[in-house]
Amino acid sequence: MKLQIINGPNLNLLGTREKKIYGDQDFNECFKSLQSTFKNIELHYFQSNIEGELINKIQEVGFNFNGIIINAAAYTHTSVGIGDAIRSITSPVVEVHISNTFSREEFRHKSFLSAHVKGIVSGFGLKSYDLAITSFLY
Amino acid sequence: MKLQIINGPNLNLLGTREKKIYGDQDFNECFKSLQSTFKNIELHYFQSNIEGELINKIQEVGFNFNGIIINAAAYTHTSVGIGDAIRSITSPVVEVHISNTFSREEFRHKSFLSAHVKGIVSGFGLKSYDLAITSFLY
Amino acid sequence: MKLQIINGPNLNLLGTREKKIYGDQDFNECFKSLQSTFKNIELHYFQSNIEGELINKIQEVGFNFNGIIINAAAYTHTSVGIGDAIRSITSPVVEVHISNTFSREEFRHKSFLSAHVKGIVSGFGLKSYDLAITSFLY
Amino acid sequence: MKLQIINGPNLNLLGTREKKIYGDQDFNECFKSLQSTFKNIELHYFQSNIEGELINKIQEVGFNFNGIIINAAAYTHTSVGIGDAIRSITSPVVEVHISNTFSREEFRHKSFLSAHVKGIVSGFGLKSYDLAITSFLY
Amino acid sequence: MKLQIINGPNLNLLGTREKKIYGDQDFNECFKSLQSTFKNIELHYFQSNIEGELINKIQEVGFNFNGIIINAAAYTHTSVGIGDAIRSITSPVVEVHISNTFSREEFRHKSFLSAHVKGIVSGFGLKSYDLAITSFLY
Amino acid sequence: MKLQIINGPNLNLLGTREKKIYGDQDFNECFKSLQSTFKNIELHYFQSNIEGELINKIQEVGFNFNGIIINAAAYTHTSVGIGDAIRSITSPVVEVHISNTFSREEFRHKSFLSAHVKGIVSGFGLKSYDLAITSFLY
Amino acid sequence: MKLQIINGPNLNLLGTREKKIYGDQDFNECFKSLQSTFKNIELHYFQSNIEGELINKIQEVGFNFNGIIINAAAYTHTSVGIGDAIRSITSPVVEVHISNTFSREEFRHKSFLSAHVKGIVSGFGLKSYDLAITSFLY
Amino acid sequence: MKLQIINGPNLNLLGTREKKIYGDQDFNECFKSLQSTFKNIELHYFQSNIEGELINKIQEVGFNFNGIIINAAAYTHTSVGIGDAIRSITSPVVEVHISNTFSREEFRHKSFLSAHVKGIVSGFGLKSYDLAITSFLY
Amino acid sequence: MKLQIINGPNLNLLGTREKKIYGDQDFNECFKSLQSTFKNIELHYFQSNIEGELINKIQEVGFNFNGIIINAAAYTHTSVGIGDAIRSITSPVVEVHISNTFSREEFRHKSFLSAHVKGIVSGFGLKSYDLAITSFLY
Amino acid sequence: MKLQIINGPNLNLLGTREKKIYGDQDFNECFKSLQSTFKNIELHYFQSNIEGELINKIQEVGFNFNGIIINAAAYTHTSVGIGDAIRSITSPVVEVHISNTFSREEFRHKSFLSAHVKGIVSGFGLKSYDLAITSFLY
Amino acid sequence: MKLQIINGPNLNLLGTREKKIYGDQDFNECFKSLQSTFKNIELHYFQSNIEGELINKIQEVGFNFNGIIINAAAYTHTSVGIGDAIRSITSPVVEVHISNTFSREEFRHKSFLSAHVKGIVSGFGLKSYDLAITSFLY
Amino acid sequence: MKLQIINGPNLNLLGTREKKIYGDQDFNECFKSLQSTFKNIELHYFQSNIEGELINKIQEVGFNFNGIIINAAAYTHTSVGIGDAIRSITSPVVEVHISNTFSREEFRHKSFLSAHVKGIVSGFGLKSYDLAITSFLY
Repeated sequence: MKLQIINGPNLNLLGTREKKIYGDQDFNECFKSLQSTFKNIELHYFQSNIEGELINKIQEVGFNFNGIIINAAAYTHTSVGIGDAIRSITSPVVEVHISNTFSREEFRHKSFLSAHVKGIVSGFGLKSYDLAITSFLY
Repeated sequence: MKLQIINGPNLNLLGTREKKIYGDQDFNECFKSLQSTFKNIELHYFQSNIEGELINKIQEVGFNFNGIIINAAAYTHTSVGIGDAIRSITSPVVEVHISNTFSREEFRHKSFLSAHVKGIVSGFGLKSYDLAITSFLY
Repeated sequence: MKLQIINGPNLNLLGTREKKIYGDQDFNECFKSLQSTFKNIELHYFQSNIEGELINKIQEVGFNFNGIIINAAAYTHTSVGIGDAIRSITSPVVEVHISNTFSREEFRHKSFLSAHVKGIVSGFGLKSYDLAITSFLY
Repeated sequence: MKLQIINGPNLNLLGTREKKIYGDQDFNECFKSLQSTFKNIELHYFQSNIEGELINKIQEVGFNFNGIIINAAAYTHTSVGIGDAIRSITSPVVEVHISNTFSREEFRHKSFLSAHVKGIVSGFGLKSYDLAITSFLY
Repeated sequence: MKLQIINGPNLNLLGTREKKIYGDQDFNECFKSLQSTFKNIELHYFQSNIEGELINKIQEVGFNFNGIIINAAAYTHTSVGIGDAIRSITSPVVEVHISNTFSREEFRHKSFLSAHVKGIVSGFGLKSYDLAITSFLY
Repeated sequence: MKLQIINGPNLNLLGTREKKIYGDQDFNECFKSLQSTFKNIELHYFQSNIEGELINKIQEVGFNFNGIIINAAAYTHTSVGIGDAIRSITSPVVEVHISNTFSREEFRHKSFLSAHVKGIVSGFGLKSYDLAITSFLY
Repeated sequence: MKLQIINGPNLNLLGTREKKIYGDQDFNECFKSLQSTFKNIELHYFQSNIEGELINKIQEVGFNFNGIIINAAAYTHTSVGIGDAIRSITSPVVEVHISNTFSREEFRHKSFLSAHVKGIVSGFGLKSYDLAITSFLY
Repeated sequence: MKLQIINGPNLNLLGTREKKIYGDQDFNECFKSLQSTFKNIELHYFQSNIEGELINKIQEVGFNFNGIIINAAAYTHTSVGIGDAIRSITSPVVEVHISNTFSREEFRHKSFLSAHVKGIVSGFGLKSYDLAITSFLY
Repeated sequence: MKLQIINGPNLNLLGTREKKIYGDQDFNECFKSLQSTFKNIELHYFQSNIEGELINKIQEVGFNFNGIIINAAAYTHTSVGIGDAIRSITSPVVEVHISNTFSREEFRHKSFLSAHVKGIVSGFGLKSYDLAITSFLY
Repeated sequence: MKLQIINGPNLNLLGTREKKIYGDQDFNECFKSLQSTFKNIELHYFQSNIEGELINKIQEVGFNFNGIIINAAAYTHTSVGIGDAIRSITSPVVEVHISNTFSREEFRHKSFLSAHVKGIVSGFGLKSYDLAITSFLY
Repeated sequence: MKLQIINGPNLNLLGTREKKIYGDQDFNECFKSLQSTFKNIELHYFQSNIEGELINKIQEVGFNFNGIIINAAAYTHTSVGIGDAIRSITSPVVEVHISNTFSREEFRHKSFLSAHVKGIVSGFGLKSYDLAITSFLY
Repeated sequence: MKLQIINGPNLNLLGTREKKIYGDQDFNECFKSLQSTFKNIELHYFQSNIEGELINKIQEVGFNFNGIIINAAAYTHTSVGIGDAIRSITSPVVEVHISNTFSREEFRHKSFLSAHVKGIVSGFGLKSYDLAITSFLY
């Protein structure tokens, strides 16, 4: 099984940025930990701050991977284009959030991805990624 | 570990009601399957169509169970009272939905619970309950 | 033919409450009058002030009666749960109002039931119930 | 007893237009059937696609007929003028819809007539007219 | 000086309709009274319940009369077309209302004509017409 | 003089729940203190988490008590039914809040009760009940 | 007959300020011209930039003058207090605007005075005052 | 091939009205030019200021012409009835605008026709008609 | 104990103005009655129609009186400045209304003061002042 | 004549993606077909999923090409930046859509480009590009 | 060069009021410091809590000073009148805020002045005044 | 002291684009002029049309420069991502606009950056950059 994890803008600062909200773990450590937890899954990781590069990656893997786990961060709330990309591909997509976006600002309650994904996991810190991967095992 | 599953209105019709959206599995079967999957967890189950009885149950277990997994169904979108109950207790709560509420009617996009829960798992069918329980194992 | 009439909150005060809007006839008298008018129909009557008990009754009769006539009163304007119950059952449902809700407060113009019912009869005083029953004779 | 039925725009296409929503019966057949059902009532019928002609007809019969049954179709949702005409006359008016307008587009949920009519019958197909006429018999 | 008075839907019922709001004077009497007050002005009068006929009349006189006094009644609040007609002609137009539309329903507060007229006279009963004609004498 | 105090959902947790907002006094102590302060008044107390049971109680006492003091808590902001019950009875009702609801979340600024009550006392902690009772002494 | 003209903020700059919208005539000249036109009327004039002073003046003359002509300028769109003052007095009030406020910014379309005045004259330049005075002669 | 061009209110003033927006060409000249450009197509032309007559024409040709090109002008933004007529017929309809309605007032951005047409051509001046006819040649 | 009562615009007309809403008692009589009821409290009274003078008074007493009782009348619904003044001082403030503002116009439901006050007493007629003073005795 | 075609996000998946909406033709075939239809025009083609690269291309050709044909896809509904780029250049721009965006989701009805373009062609499938190019031939 | 600094309501409490937001410096000290920094500029200072007095001052200096620096505080968000005054004068005006109004309550995000000023400086504490004065030196 | 200036989309066209709004000076000249004015500051300049590259640059300098001056142009009004980047770094950020965005289109009144910046300077043409740099000298 091949799964692609895609992280959006500013998630490269995890561990540095706003630790109260996002915790102090770096995503690289997190990714290694995911790899050791899910040894039978081929996990790939991609991060970009550029909306269109996230779309590029979704298109690239979206017809031959078993699934995509996406945390589009800020683009979650503004990107019609990423939502359209998810609709356009055949791989199932799980939307992930580290923090509980519904206990934050009003504009973070709207997601342009949610209507098009298979499922959503939100608010469990970096463990949201573990749950999202687990969902592909059923 | 003791966990309480709470299901809201019309979920007693699972397996009968709108099978296209909710699948054809009865929740009792589902509950048995959860019990056999998570043998080390003491799982309790409660369902009611009455908003205030859901609040009663949250209050009853909310100070001595390790967690609550709630699918408030229709009350998710209208109940300030259930949200207040979740704020009032000490056990962590995970919000669960069977269907992806964001791909349904506009009024199902608003949740009065989300701001107060630890995390949300939505859209994975009855497997949403498995993921929610798993989240308490981390 | 078996039909269930379901009345929501405060309708037990008919004949007492706000006579300018609802008239001074008690619903029990009305029910007797309906029974004598429609002798060939087995009419049942249920009233509750509790939202969830209305849902319980809808579920109880909704798979074996020929139809339901519901006046959900105040819950008409706030209950996603009753709307969901109506969607979940197989018996056709007719929504009834005694007063013309559209000539009253703005918040009474919205119904969470209307999208799911077979038809609506509104504004004819207690005669709305006669018309609703008549609709099942066609 | 003299009753006027008034049909608004595009209802002359009944039986031709969007059969899924409106059925395949022509209104002329329907009118004949109404006449044979209600033999003791003098039924009149008028249809126009022109908003102002509907107002003209309401004014013409609105002081000497026993009632008006109006299906203003599309003008239901946009015509302040027809609403004003109904307020201006002395005959009681019943608003009728063939389809359940509340299960269709959002803009069909608003009626500029409803606040001024005696009662509303909606969603029973062409049988809505039967029920509306029946309401004048009480 | 030639002035055209144009009255919209239901104003032909003045003196009959809703006397509390509009008074009990017939517009014909009013028109005669205006003619005798303003002897040096050639006054013309037109009324229609049909939006498009009001547009026709505006176009017909709008390039050769000295002015138009229009009470578009219900169409005031819904007709982009009459507003466009007023923009398209060269004669100045004064908007007139008998009642104070701002002390009535919310939807009567919006006028699609106001942005395009020379001036507005509202709330003086039938004397609003006198004031509007007077405005052309300055 | 007979007065009924009615408390809504989660107020049974007073003294336990969110002490920063609601203080750490249990309502039973508070009720005893009210009884000793107002010795000449027959005070009754009822609490329920179920919306419809609050309506039941309002109807039960609403025609023979001298007044009702209601803190509907979360249902304040969502219950058309409780508002209707208050309209339906003859006893005057005073609305009470412990916290200042206007300095909290936006959705707590709207009350479906306020339009129907005699008066409102809000923000004085448990002393709001004292003031409400005092209001019946004038 | 005694009439009070009241002008609100920035109208003391007439003839200086934004000549394209308001013309280049000073209000003092205008007032003299009104006095010579309406010789039989005792005209009074007051201007202030202070909302509360406009209220003071309305209260002062509002029980003994035959009428008030008010151009509240900017306060038209924001002052509940001036609207309340007009409701509180017994003299009839006519609202006047020099420019057509409906062809200007959106926030100038709302008037807090309109619902409480006898009539409105708007858009005729300084001649709006002439028409307003004339309205008291009928 | 038979195509019907339908023009709505005030378009009979083309060449006269607001030349900055609509140009100074009369539609009759334009129609002749279209006829000479598209010699193999039988072009019909109809204009009316009356909403219902536009509906009449759509119904008349809508089952036997190859297509309709409609510029509903002001009715574009207010007419549910014309939208319904387009839905009711079988001929494909192309919506045309002379000016770019999106660079004009906000209320001209909404079209009640667009959801029901085959395609839209907007902003090319009278050449919009040429393009619309061309679209039927593919 | 020193308390300042501050009344806003048009409250100097109490007893004269809109007696149905505000009663026919003059505030001076009311103030004398308050003084004789609360003999141990040094009561001060101030009224102004000018928003800024209300702010001046709040600032003047807001650091050395034991409390302020304010009925800002119309400014309640529009004044950010009075709300800011209340935030800026150290004396606790109680907001008072004579009528139940929630059973009146929509724009009277919004208060710019409420978020900053200690408590609110509303709807008890002039007795609202008695209750507000009483609140300072606890 | 030199024309630039610019396609936005996910249009590189044409022929693969959502065939019900967009058809099964690849844009490369389409582009060849356009080249053979319009032999005298030098056609250029550019596609990117990155908003800023679309802006770069608009700037690059926008001062020396005869025109731009842009289908900004998802960015149509969110990009102020592309709208600004179109305003900044001198070449005329035609906005193109393959599907009829007005018969799809609400958020696709808003275009940030439309106010700044010369014209719009929408809903004709890939033939929209043919019509857009044709518009440059007049 | 003559510049007028105008401060609005509650700014006379600077150094006393809400020190977390506004700092603990008194504006008099600040003004002295500004005078010593900008020795070649004749600086004038005015503060009032009364909206109309701010308008008076703007009118007084607005035709003969080189510029105005205004911090209208709470009136920023509600005063159409101050905005109109700024439009009416000839001196350029710079709007100043001590705190970053956009990181505070929603109603502080709207300014009725901003559309009419030359520039805005916001969020730099009392140094905002320094920057505003500096802007007149270019 | 090291400061980074970041310019967003279309600002590379300064001097070319819409000169009425932005003036005719090229930003390179402007940058040289800033360098010669502020000789003791190490100024860096970056421009991109790509949202994500602006985020990249903010992250790159945001932990080691003394400050950032950002004019995000069109992205100001749509980019949650740039706002998040500003929150994530430690360097203070000043938001700059050349034109007064509040006197332009409604959608330019909203900024997703403002809540997170230290201060805002807007409307002074290219001199806004001078003021922003000056703000770092205090």
